Amino acid sequence: MRKIEIGILGMGTVGSGVWDLFRKNRDLIWNKSGIDLKIAKVADKDPKRKGVLGIPDDIFTEDPIEVLEHPDIDIVVELIGGTTVARELIIRAAEKHKHIVTANKALLARHGPEVFKIVVENEVEIGFEASVGGGIPIIKTIREALVGNRVKKIIGILNGTSNFILTKMTREGIDFNQALEVAQRLGFAEADPYLDISGGDARHKITILSSFAFNTMIDHDSVYMEGVDGIDIKDIGYAEEFGFVTKLLAVAHLTDHGILVKVHPTLVSRENPLAAVLWEDNAVMVESDFLGTSMYYGKGAGAKPTASAVVADVVDISERILGKSEYNSKRYTFFRDLPQLEFETNRTRYYFRFNVLDRPGILSKIAGVLGQNNISIASVIQKEKEEELKYVPLIMMTHDAVEADVKRAIAKIDSFPEVEKSSKIIRVLTD
Amino acid sequence: MRKIEIGILGMGTVGSGVWDLFRKNRDLIWNKSGIDLKIAKVADKDPKRKGVLGIPDDIFTEDPIEVLEHPDIDIVVELIGGTTVARELIIRAAEKHKHIVTANKALLARHGPEVFKIVVENEVEIGFEASVGGGIPIIKTIREALVGNRVKKIIGILNGTSNFILTKMTREGIDFNQALEVAQRLGFAEADPYLDISGGDARHKITILSSFAFNTMIDHDSVYMEGVDGIDIKDIGYAEEFGFVTKLLAVAHLTDHGILVKVHPTLVSRENPLAAVLWEDNAVMVESDFLGTSMYYGKGAGAKPTASAVVADVVDISERILGKSEYNSKRYTFFRDLPQLEFETNRTRYYFRFNVLDRPGILSKIAGVLGQNNISIASVIQKEKEEELKYVPLIMMTHDAVEADVKRAIAKIDSFPEVEKSSKIIRVLTD
Repeated sequence: MRKIEIGILGMGTVGSGVWDLFRKNRDLIWNKSGIDLKIAKVADKDPKRKGVLGIPDDIFTEDPIEVLEHPDIDIVVELIGGTTVARELIIRAAEKHKHIVTANKALLARHGPEVFKIVVENEVEIGFEASVGGGIPIIKTIREALVGNRVKKIIGILNGTSNFILTKMTREGIDFNQALEVAQRLGFAEADPYLDISGGDARHKITILSSFAFNTMIDHDSVYMEGVDGIDIKDIGYAEEFGFVTKLLAVAHLTDHGILVKVHPTLVSRENPLAAVLWEDNAVMVESDFLGTSMYYGKGAGAKPTASAVVADVVDISERILGKSEYNSKRYTFFRDLPQLEFETNRTRYYFRFNVLDRPGILSKIAGVLGQNNISIASVIQKEKEEELKYVPLIMMTHDAVEADVKRAIAKIDSFPEVEKSSKIIRVLTD
Repeated sequence: MRKIEIGILGMGTVGSGVWDLFRKNRDLIWNKSGIDLKIAKVADKDPKRKGVLGIPDDIFTEDPIEVLEHPDIDIVVELIGGTTVARELIIRAAEKHKHIVTANKALLARHGPEVFKIVVENEVEIGFEASVGGGIPIIKTIREALVGNRVKKIIGILNGTSNFILTKMTREGIDFNQALEVAQRLGFAEADPYLDISGGDARHKITILSSFAFNTMIDHDSVYMEGVDGIDIKDIGYAEEFGFVTKLLAVAHLTDHGILVKVHPTLVSRENPLAAVLWEDNAVMVESDFLGTSMYYGKGAGAKPTASAVVADVVDISERILGKSEYNSKRYTFFRDLPQLEFETNRTRYYFRFNVLDRPGILSKIAGVLGQNNISIASVIQKEKEEELKYVPLIMMTHDAVEADVKRAIAKIDSFPEVEKSSKIIRVLTD
């Protein structure tokens, strides 16, 4: 009998989704995989969840330790989130030789080295598909489908809230605060949206994803981050005139010198498949030496899609448990130790918007500073001065330039008396 | 030592790609997976391939049987193609208790029941990721990532040649024959393009994909098929006016009555992510109960992408061999036996183009026949008569209608003396 028992910690949104999936599709999973999965115990600090979800008395507990110490449980599914209680429980589960499935991106991004070390020491498996891109099987793809490939670049739309807000702004011409309000009303943004709109959530995800894609443990705190909260509707409009849509991209890029990992608003050509990823959807584009460019698209959050990823991990780990093969620590070992590059070395095309007084000579003055900093201009649009405004917008697209040079040039330009001290830069996705 | 030896049958395009991948990335695979893969023997009837690829003498043979009988070989990779020699070799490999990896879509689509039966009888594994969507990991996704999901619908752009031709026609306004010529010149179409442009290749792929998605062995010959060879550039243009792009879609759809599987040119809304799949690229969209809508996009053919899929299968099967777990026949068993529906029952929206004499009353006559056949019109465009032409085009979009009704109505309309007997219908992708 291929029987595996699981315990769940945390019956919030995702936990409820997993419970629902088991209720509806447990027989299907048995027929597909030949694995008889059973939820042996679920823990939640809120006893009301038991009634709401119809969880039998003998399965429910308020004490997570009961799940960890349950002798029949093979796999512990951690769905509490956060980096305090969840961290302790995962460590304890590994020490009890329970295998682990988790959706906890913050924990793996911030404490990955510790978690993977303990997992390997105790020879247990850990599944974390649900931590990146919700239900999109991107971790599985990176590790298994691309096993024969050298990954060169990962480009992700990994935060549904940000993508929803940008889509709303673009489609309706409304500003950031209005779009955020709609997102909150529709449940696509939290009451406290900071982690999403600051780029923090996308940073967690790209840290995990790139660690496995490049087999190098990426340092989360060194990943450059800039969120959608600074995006002005005007720039979305001007960028459209150049044929670009504005997206929050999480990018990890292997160069000759190391890996550059970053999260920031980015202009994407209208022709790029990522431009068609709208509203709360997520997508990850991967460039690798043999497969070439491939893309994986779907629901990046929500009870049902996340439950789909959790259950896929449970089945995969069950196969490995039942396979009784030798423990393979390589799954959680980062055999390359590539240097992580400073964002200041980032090289790409830039979109600039300067607000300038409409006086002769200002364009040549700005162009001069750019030239001195090795930034060459590809095209310029000078907008008509709107009646009531003091400044006119001067928009430029550059050829490839280096972030450090751009920062220096912008600081210089912002010091001119003819320029409003609020010049905007948005990086452009290039090949 | 986790060592696995493989033998390759056929060193054509894909075989060369696999050889190249091993040469470049074998150490990488070892570091990622802890599996030491070795190519023990390769067979090709053309001895010149040995020199071209730099294959050592002791590894090369012209006799495939030598590969099958090699005592150290665990996995045989069949890359010969076709349904004659390849079929015999695969059967013989299974009987010799060799595991199998193949890219052979024709064989699995036409002889799936036989192949899977022999595989299960001999308790060997068979990997066939490379048979559908080239390097896109769609088989793995359907079986593993979606293990907890009930699949409802699969929509695939599965033939790169057809998609290239349609993209070329759409972008440049050229006709089918011109576009085919370009495709052939650039190597995106074979000298004999029949299998691609007739829809036959896409039919092979959707047969395999839907068999595993719905756990029901689909009968290849009952899958409806219509290729891009009948597409008129005029209809691509008119469809664009309605906001649609023309794609060759392979669709498998689960209804209350059974599974409908079909391949035909289809109008896709410009907003649909499938509309952004251009040139020779492939993509598969999957709708399932928990993950919702997800899409997988990439290179559907070519030496390198296909090699990527072959090697991923080799590593997966190696894991199972090394895992020494009980043989799981469920991987190749179709536990549901859902009925396969007749295409005549297909229900969708339609695009019609009638060429009519510009006489009063003809529109009402056509509308009358449509109404009698339960077809209601959503919108109509009557084009201006071009000077030199006898007929004017009358274009209609319908609401949902049934294929059998449409066939009956079109036959009736084509019998009118005011109508040129060449009315065009294109089905529309609806939810």
